[in-house]
Amino acid sequence: MKSYIKKLCEKAKKASRALALLDQKAKDRALIAMARALCQNASYIARENKKDIDSARKKGMSKALVDRLLLSHAGINAMADSLLDIARLKDPVGGIIETRSRPNGLLIKKVRVPIGVILIIYESRPNVTSDCIGLCLKSGNACILRGGSVAANSNIAIFNILDKTAAKYGLPKGAVSIIKDTDRRIVNELLTQGALIDLVIPRGGESLIREVSKRSRIPVIKHYKGVCHTYVDETADLSMAQDICFNAKVQRPGVCNAMETMLVNKKIARKFLPSMVKRFIDAGVEIRGTEEVRRMCGDMKIRQAAEADWYAEYLDLILSVKIVKDADEAIRHIMKYGSYHSDAIVTEDTDSAAKFLNEVDSACVYVNASTRFTDGGQFGKGAEIGISTDKIHARGPMGLEELTSYKYIIYGTGQVRR
Amino acid sequence: MKSYIKKLCEKAKKASRALALLDQKAKDRALIAMARALCQNASYIARENKKDIDSARKKGMSKALVDRLLLSHAGINAMADSLLDIARLKDPVGGIIETRSRPNGLLIKKVRVPIGVILIIYESRPNVTSDCIGLCLKSGNACILRGGSVAANSNIAIFNILDKTAAKYGLPKGAVSIIKDTDRRIVNELLTQGALIDLVIPRGGESLIREVSKRSRIPVIKHYKGVCHTYVDETADLSMAQDICFNAKVQRPGVCNAMETMLVNKKIARKFLPSMVKRFIDAGVEIRGTEEVRRMCGDMKIRQAAEADWYAEYLDLILSVKIVKDADEAIRHIMKYGSYHSDAIVTEDTDSAAKFLNEVDSACVYVNASTRFTDGGQFGKGAEIGISTDKIHARGPMGLEELTSYKYIIYGTGQVRR
Repeated sequence: MKSYIKKLCEKAKKASRALALLDQKAKDRALIAMARALCQNASYIARENKKDIDSARKKGMSKALVDRLLLSHAGINAMADSLLDIARLKDPVGGIIETRSRPNGLLIKKVRVPIGVILIIYESRPNVTSDCIGLCLKSGNACILRGGSVAANSNIAIFNILDKTAAKYGLPKGAVSIIKDTDRRIVNELLTQGALIDLVIPRGGESLIREVSKRSRIPVIKHYKGVCHTYVDETADLSMAQDICFNAKVQRPGVCNAMETMLVNKKIARKFLPSMVKRFIDAGVEIRGTEEVRRMCGDMKIRQAAEADWYAEYLDLILSVKIVKDADEAIRHIMKYGSYHSDAIVTEDTDSAAKFLNEVDSACVYVNASTRFTDGGQFGKGAEIGISTDKIHARGPMGLEELTSYKYIIYGTGQVRR
Repeated sequence: MKSYIKKLCEKAKKASRALALLDQKAKDRALIAMARALCQNASYIARENKKDIDSARKKGMSKALVDRLLLSHAGINAMADSLLDIARLKDPVGGIIETRSRPNGLLIKKVRVPIGVILIIYESRPNVTSDCIGLCLKSGNACILRGGSVAANSNIAIFNILDKTAAKYGLPKGAVSIIKDTDRRIVNELLTQGALIDLVIPRGGESLIREVSKRSRIPVIKHYKGVCHTYVDETADLSMAQDICFNAKVQRPGVCNAMETMLVNKKIARKFLPSMVKRFIDAGVEIRGTEEVRRMCGDMKIRQAAEADWYAEYLDLILSVKIVKDADEAIRHIMKYGSYHSDAIVTEDTDSAAKFLNEVDSACVYVNASTRFTDGGQFGKGAEIGISTDKIHARGPMGLEELTSYKYIIYGTGQVRR
């Protein structure tokens, strides 16, 4: 097993050197062909996906989690569209970030280069397979994928199609690879390959992230949970606040940028909460509130929120609700219980907005919009490899640029240091 | 000990929140006062430094290493100047990296924010203490310093002066701290504080870096060794090549951007090498060469280079020398034995230059200049916290901007996701 992993990583490293020197045209041609291949093989992918869905349902997985796993034909087309989007994006490699001319005549250019070999460890969403391959390829990185066993059939189907196309279009062997064996020890072995793998991106739940961070000798960019908040300020346009909160919770509850906790300013709570909560309950959302929330909503069915609820990423139609005194208390709550992913304030007051934007130290902080917009595509980056909850290297949606490093190229005419 | 570390880190975290909101004026005022305080207390610092120097000499440390440790009055003034330079630099915090306007009306700003709490673990150079405090403070980060025991007296003297000044100028308590206890277990304990420390920067030798990388649960940016090369191409201006190589090796051999290996193209070796080697030997440089180099240099005293020499960071007046067939062989040598820090080609041929710049995957790649320029000050960044040999987050000289992260601030008018 060790020698298998070592060989796979060495192949990836070698491929990464060749990939780094590939021009945009060659990469885009392959990406477009990959998109076509996905569409042409949609029935095969859907069939393989159905196996995963069936076994997930048999295991009694929640509806929201099954939703993350599902690949309809529309979903497959969306994957292909993502690849086409990536093909249309500017190649980040070779881009000049900055040019400095020094008094001694040295010309210093800061130039984007690929990172090298990227290991991506993810859980249930099979479109991650295709997005990661597309983004890594375009940014000149070799990638090693390790998907969750729940999506194994879907992931391998997608990989097979894309890998075959990559070979047909002359991409270096080993540029993309997938670990099919579900043995956990393989991941542990991969995480020791610091000389060959340059970056690890784990996307998933707490235990996965913790395990990877603990074992890795390779830099890690965590794609951790989203405990996202919306704070409805006393000056909020309440009808706007209703729509934003409803969207943030209900539109797609199984994803990390969905709202998990709603914080409501005391002064408008009585006016805002009962109708808001009713709308949620009518949409099938389970509400967990403080005593104060429960009293205010009279006979509506609201469970008492426990301390653990404030930390919870439900990824489901469940929402915790709390009444706060002011923006300060909302910010304190978010900084204590949140995961620094995406948080929003709904307010008409520019001072409250500025305070919230400044003091909430999350990757994405919103005024008057749904947290659901935290997404590479929505940000205009094309597909994303995920949403970083780290502060090092990349934060928030990670697109092509975030998958690059840089180097300095210095042109001299014989300069020496005095 | 555990509770002491925990408290220190909690204090730093709290201070970092306050520091992040501090305006540039307040920070610059403190920096200027710190510079003044260093100069006013130069004799005290020099006295404490002398204790370290004496004990280093007693331990038989090499001249180059003692050079790294030495703080002359000029060196203390240089430290103060660095702080003044930092005060003059633009505050990176709050800087807008990018603004995007989306079709749905969302306005997305990518804004620089401090990283939070930075732990810096370093070895012998005491000016690191002052530079790190200055750079972290200006970039809004709290810092925890752990210097090498060889420079303990110097580091604590510098820290005491700067910390006192920081307090006088109203900086939050705990914004800067230093670990005085030299017990190794303290470092291990610090490296588990992932919830409170955001980044670890180890600067030093192989064993330090390896130990920190192995134990850390916190993101690490390595400041690893510099096995720097200069390749003298067949088309090189040989007199320029001599000056560049001589400067890269001799001007300050104890630092990471000094050249450790010289690679010479076969076609010009006979013309270039003997006089170059003589110049090195006259300057006290020990040459370790291949059989071919030794033959070519006749009766000059050249030791046979062993395989280990090509990997060695001498940090001293020692140079390994090899003759190569062409730029390709030079590049292969550098990619195999180098540390991806700084490498140079001396050439008059633009194709060779382009090839070298493109294929040598080091943080800084030079054409016709000394590798000694790899330095935050020389790059126009002001003082540097070090030179990253990692590819994640920051590469090469790390100045103020590299000590920041960013967040996205999104302004909406009620947008929800469809």
